[in-house]
Amino acid sequence: MPTDVVDHFIAAIERRDLEHALTHLTDDCEYDNVPMGKVVGRDAVRATLGPFMAGFEEIVWTVTHQVSSGNLDQGVVMNERLDRFRAGDRWLELPVAGLFVVRHGQIALWRDYFDRDQLLQQMASFA
Amino acid sequence: MPTDVVDHFIAAIERRDLEHALTHLTDDCEYDNVPMGKVVGRDAVRATLGPFMAGFEEIVWTVTHQVSSGNLDQGVVMNERLDRFRAGDRWLELPVAGLFVVRHGQIALWRDYFDRDQLLQQMASFA
Repeated sequence: MPTDVVDHFIAAIERRDLEHALTHLTDDCEYDNVPMGKVVGRDAVRATLGPFMAGFEEIVWTVTHQVSSGNLDQGVVMNERLDRFRAGDRWLELPVAGLFVVRHGQIALWRDYFDRDQLLQQMASFA
Repeated sequence: MPTDVVDHFIAAIERRDLEHALTHLTDDCEYDNVPMGKVVGRDAVRATLGPFMAGFEEIVWTVTHQVSSGNLDQGVVMNERLDRFRAGDRWLELPVAGLFVVRHGQIALWRDYFDRDQLLQQMASFA
């Protein structure tokens, strides 16, 4: 199932093991935060997610729905999530709908839909 | 396939046949525009979508990915879309990820994820 790689990816994010999470992405993975812009390549994903994740002590991504087609060789996964990040006793919470295109067991495209202001306003309040 | 009812619903929206589109929703359908709020019930969906759709002469929702689980009796559909609305010679374009929960052949929950500002800024420029 193509959901397997997405489940493993999210589990690694929740462990805050970014390096292991990155192994689930293709070298040329496109990571597109739709309202904010995209980056391409595992190194660029590391540079984007690393500093953000480092600001939090706990990460919980609750998947409320997840559906897929295809297989691990060529598949599509979409999920609805509540991505939560804790710093001290406060949680940043972001409702997200994600698209993952899987090729040969790795995520080749990861595209998240969310409200930009909802993220930025919470980030500002944490700063 | 639960995608059948979503496909028919979108086709009716594209024909700007809101009344027919509404027949694909349950009486108590929840319509949740995540960054803006939700309404409940077919009448509330009509009141939300009707005035908005009336402002446009052409509607095209391009589904770029669509995946599902279950069946028409109890199913989940998610899609990635570019929702386009034309007034005169200008198009309003909104990237959207949608979740549809299908029960007994009708859509019981329709939840769209998008960037609120991206919609509002375009609407303001059309006013």
